[in-house]
Amino acid sequence: MTLAPGFIDALRASSAASPFNQWSGFEVVSCGEGTAELAMAWKAEATQHVGFLHAGVVGALIDTVCGYAAATRAGPVLTSHYSVNFMVPAVGTRFRAVGRVVRAGKRQIFTAAELYAEKDGTERLVATGEALLMPVAG
Amino acid sequence: MTLAPGFIDALRASSAASPFNQWSGFEVVSCGEGTAELAMAWKAEATQHVGFLHAGVVGALIDTVCGYAAATRAGPVLTSHYSVNFMVPAVGTRFRAVGRVVRAGKRQIFTAAELYAEKDGTERLVATGEALLMPVAG
Amino acid sequence: MTLAPGFIDALRASSAASPFNQWSGFEVVSCGEGTAELAMAWKAEATQHVGFLHAGVVGALIDTVCGYAAATRAGPVLTSHYSVNFMVPAVGTRFRAVGRVVRAGKRQIFTAAELYAEKDGTERLVATGEALLMPVAG
Amino acid sequence: MTLAPGFIDALRASSAASPFNQWSGFEVVSCGEGTAELAMAWKAEATQHVGFLHAGVVGALIDTVCGYAAATRAGPVLTSHYSVNFMVPAVGTRFRAVGRVVRAGKRQIFTAAELYAEKDGTERLVATGEALLMPVAG
Repeated sequence: MTLAPGFIDALRASSAASPFNQWSGFEVVSCGEGTAELAMAWKAEATQHVGFLHAGVVGALIDTVCGYAAATRAGPVLTSHYSVNFMVPAVGTRFRAVGRVVRAGKRQIFTAAELYAEKDGTERLVATGEALLMPVAG
Repeated sequence: MTLAPGFIDALRASSAASPFNQWSGFEVVSCGEGTAELAMAWKAEATQHVGFLHAGVVGALIDTVCGYAAATRAGPVLTSHYSVNFMVPAVGTRFRAVGRVVRAGKRQIFTAAELYAEKDGTERLVATGEALLMPVAG
Repeated sequence: MTLAPGFIDALRASSAASPFNQWSGFEVVSCGEGTAELAMAWKAEATQHVGFLHAGVVGALIDTVCGYAAATRAGPVLTSHYSVNFMVPAVGTRFRAVGRVVRAGKRQIFTAAELYAEKDGTERLVATGEALLMPVAG
Repeated sequence: MTLAPGFIDALRASSAASPFNQWSGFEVVSCGEGTAELAMAWKAEATQHVGFLHAGVVGALIDTVCGYAAATRAGPVLTSHYSVNFMVPAVGTRFRAVGRVVRAGKRQIFTAAELYAEKDGTERLVATGEALLMPVAG
């Protein structure tokens, strides 16, 4: 199975149709067979009380990139469960989330993702996460 | 141990100092010994592509209410890990998150939360979650 | 919907058919509509290197009681995901796991459980957990 | 930092001191800087009612290999939280768990692991998992 040419346009259209993704400034950077990459520039309004990227926005990046990775294998999906691990404070000028399908079954898709923060020209792993998704009957 | 009078003001000040909480419209409804309650009115900008409350905003509510519940026992905390279960689409005119401490140790605090959506005058459980937090050395 | 009379016998038969449950000494204590309770006597062979009940056996109790609670609503199930939180060392003369369905949908069942250890006549919460299960096509 | 020569002997001694690991037949295959590998031969007594490796034994392999990987960086540890994803039935003649440290901080260590089953000469990913551990004050 190969990813249909132009599949990234479908992901970008989905993200453009998500008011929260638009507000956050999520950009779909790339996608492949079972993979996806999302970026977001630092946004002061998306922070918590001590100035780190809000845990909910971290969760949004993780869940969204996992969902897009899953979509490359299964089309439209809904999340059943996701989790996030916070390694170091999510601070930087730009964030990059990388997601991948670990196993795509007929009834459920297991995915995982990493979130990196760019600061002073170097990238650092700030969070990891997982999502379990279900294909939406088309 | 009893919660200091006015503790809720400290939580409200913390939430007021969080740009994302302010944007989302989170309100600290109440808190007690090891418990907290948060509310949020429906906000169109906080939705995903099919109009449900965005999974990241659901995560933000779960993580924040768990953090506030933990703070009633341990003061300032940081999240190490959180997870969310999505039961039914998060749609409604108002959301209410209820968090509680399951176990507060010296080095880590285990919490859990439920998220309810109000629609047509009735409330429905839409998501549950957990968070594991660490006290921040004061 | 009411639980069929004798449903507990089906759970006991399932547990009797599980070599690991038999080795561990799991007993199905009770079940109800969306609930189940499991017990296990202390067993020295089921411990880890410092004498606590092994994390895997804790996981087995959590997953099994969640599966039995799910089965009261959905019949045969398989686990997609489970997680365990370790609050205090799992030490005691007897363990009791209590599971409940949080939400039973057609395609997935969300459950949660607590594990208690009995020692010197008192019971203490030692772990909590969650499981996400799928109905097995009958 | 390099792993002390003979560190694997410490892990083997720890596993030998764990009655459950001994019963299960866990073997410490290898370890490195932030990594560990564990193996287990098929054992009929370790199965559930339909003949798959019991979810608790899968959890034991995941948690143990994560703990050993963490120990290569932090010495003695205790698990705060672990989770397991079940991809396909855990059936095979031999199981191999591979764990790695994702981030080792002073207060907590984030780890992840995969479980493979060998059958008819080929290996297949059957489960993945994560564990969050705390260093034990030495």
